[in-house]
Amino acid sequence: MTRACTPSWAETTNGDGFGIGWYDAAPAPRVFRSIEPAWNDQNLRELAGHISSHLFFAHIRAAIGSAVQQANCHPFRHGRWLFMHNGFIDGFAAIKRDLVLAVDESLFPQIKGQADTEILFCLALTFGLADDPPDAVARAIGFVGACGRQRGITDPFQGTIATSDGESLRVFRYSSQGRSRSLFFSRDARTVKRQYPGRHALQQLSDDARFVVSEPIGDLPGAWVELARTG
Amino acid sequence: MTRACTPSWAETTNGDGFGIGWYDAAPAPRVFRSIEPAWNDQNLRELAGHISSHLFFAHIRAAIGSAVQQANCHPFRHGRWLFMHNGFIDGFAAIKRDLVLAVDESLFPQIKGQADTEILFCLALTFGLADDPPDAVARAIGFVGACGRQRGITDPFQGTIATSDGESLRVFRYSSQGRSRSLFFSRDARTVKRQYPGRHALQQLSDDARFVVSEPIGDLPGAWVELARTG
Amino acid sequence: MTRACTPSWAETTNGDGFGIGWYDAAPAPRVFRSIEPAWNDQNLRELAGHISSHLFFAHIRAAIGSAVQQANCHPFRHGRWLFMHNGFIDGFAAIKRDLVLAVDESLFPQIKGQADTEILFCLALTFGLADDPPDAVARAIGFVGACGRQRGITDPFQGTIATSDGESLRVFRYSSQGRSRSLFFSRDARTVKRQYPGRHALQQLSDDARFVVSEPIGDLPGAWVELARTG
Amino acid sequence: MTRACTPSWAETTNGDGFGIGWYDAAPAPRVFRSIEPAWNDQNLRELAGHISSHLFFAHIRAAIGSAVQQANCHPFRHGRWLFMHNGFIDGFAAIKRDLVLAVDESLFPQIKGQADTEILFCLALTFGLADDPPDAVARAIGFVGACGRQRGITDPFQGTIATSDGESLRVFRYSSQGRSRSLFFSRDARTVKRQYPGRHALQQLSDDARFVVSEPIGDLPGAWVELARTG
Repeated sequence: MTRACTPSWAETTNGDGFGIGWYDAAPAPRVFRSIEPAWNDQNLRELAGHISSHLFFAHIRAAIGSAVQQANCHPFRHGRWLFMHNGFIDGFAAIKRDLVLAVDESLFPQIKGQADTEILFCLALTFGLADDPPDAVARAIGFVGACGRQRGITDPFQGTIATSDGESLRVFRYSSQGRSRSLFFSRDARTVKRQYPGRHALQQLSDDARFVVSEPIGDLPGAWVELARTG
Repeated sequence: MTRACTPSWAETTNGDGFGIGWYDAAPAPRVFRSIEPAWNDQNLRELAGHISSHLFFAHIRAAIGSAVQQANCHPFRHGRWLFMHNGFIDGFAAIKRDLVLAVDESLFPQIKGQADTEILFCLALTFGLADDPPDAVARAIGFVGACGRQRGITDPFQGTIATSDGESLRVFRYSSQGRSRSLFFSRDARTVKRQYPGRHALQQLSDDARFVVSEPIGDLPGAWVELARTG
Repeated sequence: MTRACTPSWAETTNGDGFGIGWYDAAPAPRVFRSIEPAWNDQNLRELAGHISSHLFFAHIRAAIGSAVQQANCHPFRHGRWLFMHNGFIDGFAAIKRDLVLAVDESLFPQIKGQADTEILFCLALTFGLADDPPDAVARAIGFVGACGRQRGITDPFQGTIATSDGESLRVFRYSSQGRSRSLFFSRDARTVKRQYPGRHALQQLSDDARFVVSEPIGDLPGAWVELARTG
Repeated sequence: MTRACTPSWAETTNGDGFGIGWYDAAPAPRVFRSIEPAWNDQNLRELAGHISSHLFFAHIRAAIGSAVQQANCHPFRHGRWLFMHNGFIDGFAAIKRDLVLAVDESLFPQIKGQADTEILFCLALTFGLADDPPDAVARAIGFVGACGRQRGITDPFQGTIATSDGESLRVFRYSSQGRSRSLFFSRDARTVKRQYPGRHALQQLSDDARFVVSEPIGDLPGAWVELARTG
């Protein structure tokens, strides 16, 4: 298999579990997570046909260092908030203790797994995610960067992040070395439907449907807009 | 652990996977199955809070002979039909070939697992479950009995069965040796709610809610009526 | 099922995964862990027939609070050491941060799960398990007790512990409230074999075989000696 | 990810479980199988360091139609025999009943899964695998081909097969359409070790070690010899 066009930091197979999160009438979002590859998961197929929501999260995992277990699968949840991440904290083992100590004491008992993203989420919560999401995420990433550099790690953070409280969706992209992972959103659904009249799945989209994705999916030229690269 | 009151044919722990099935607006019912014990399954907890339906099936499995895998978890599904079973076919390995050969050829490719119940379900479908459920189930059990006795098995079948097409629920109890497993249904929900005003979960039941169970659950004396033993 | 004789602190079903550990010629012991119940695990059956060792650990888990995942299954391993525990730290969520902060910084990145026992093991390692096992385990339990009482927990610790470096096996029993779980060892294997000439599995034991168990197994009156209760 | 050089019939990711089989002093070979991807399976890593044998089978699975469950993972076992297969029976659902009916009645109860390979193995056993492996495998493939063509399937079989009784290893390659999958064996281990002095893993091979693989592994030009294509 040729992998010539795959950037060196990207995993080519995301088969180490997956997770979906969605909002319904309940106070907290729902989460379904599995340690098996998404592609042949029968339960996912069943649920995908059953669940309807105005806001979905979906994540397929390529484990980097931490174990393949449900507690390490995205999205992570706290109260109304969902959080997921495509990327990693470099040198996480070396700075994990520093990061964990900075997590608000009340959040500490809720840490369930060992994924770097769960700690990042806890830091964002600690730094005020509920009040000012962009500021909290920026401070969390900044703190990771500071801890990493203190331990001699050159590029401590890179990735894209999605988080929501069920009302609005916030996405971020950042890289310590200025080469952030990609992030795309879909064009207006009416436009995409006109562009691909023969694609049945697309035709079922409501007019206000919108996707935000790490990488373009579905071989749909013209359907995706890349978020400007600032980091 | 004392197990003095447990009949000899009953498994004391049903930890070999579980399954739920339910009907929504889709043509076929939904099924969610897992090979882990139900008691600590996080996804089950999530889904139990999310799914609503007018008709649910739920089954916890104690594997008897066949592997712990999703394809062997109840409820089984075919078209609109769900089917589950508490019991077993005695000497199943010895008569399995006879039974499988009697399954309608069109159903054969849909056999996904190795559970005796899946074959029983296929036999019931072969014998006309969609047209006359009681007759089809009776003929399926009768056929199992005939095959078993031909191979020298004294008591080939015992168990309770539940099946539905989403409209009505049919339950059966039968034993080749005349000692069928138990089967109970719940009294009128308004009565039970009046009887247990402090039980929060019960108070949430709608007035027309009804449970059919293999064994009384929830320590609720007075809430259950046993189906008359005819087999 | 009657459970009248089960003490209130004991779990009646240990179906939340299991683990075995053993020593061979390699520098570190081997560990095999699974999140499925041990009773129907096909791989366990295969390995049980294949592996031979002078020293085995085996543990079946009843999850109390932490997730059913391999990283929470006993035995835990560090270097030459294996460690397992039957019991729990009461109020673990409340004191976990205090405990984790006391773990040696070099051990911190190796924490893989969320089980109380893993933290207890890390504390014992921090307090010198390799040099003086009884002292280190006593100090670890003492520290858990002190942290717990500081947070208002009446009986922070109870359980039995087994640990080894492959040379000797150390077992401990202790309870903050003076009602420790039980711990038994088997009588001289020659005696047991003479006592049960018809038990094939026992006859295969070498003359110097010895079991240490939380509870007597195998319905073998006369084969077990209870460790004196001091805690 | 570019996949330009991947033949159309090859799966690019084998993440649907795996299995290993090996021979030790026991009458039957051992098998270890898992439904998770091999690449992050902790138990596989443990066992790979522990097990030694003169003959290993290893298989990573890309499920084609049948469920991801241990019973469908290769290698399959019967008595002294192991059997695995890289390929598939085209139109398996349509001819499965014909194939199953041809399986010796004594073998029928031992069918545990739904994989086409398990049925192929049962057919080879039925046709005398223990007496004349090449003839039995040829007859099994021939029977599959005949059944397939009778049902209108153009190219019913393609794949490579490995089977052993612990003494000798037999490998086969065949395709109904004359484009069989590849099959390679490694050159003399002393030659390979001389050729790659810096590859630590290779240097640990004994002089008589030999690999037979579906596709060259390890980026080792010069180390592999392709079996002549006859089918």
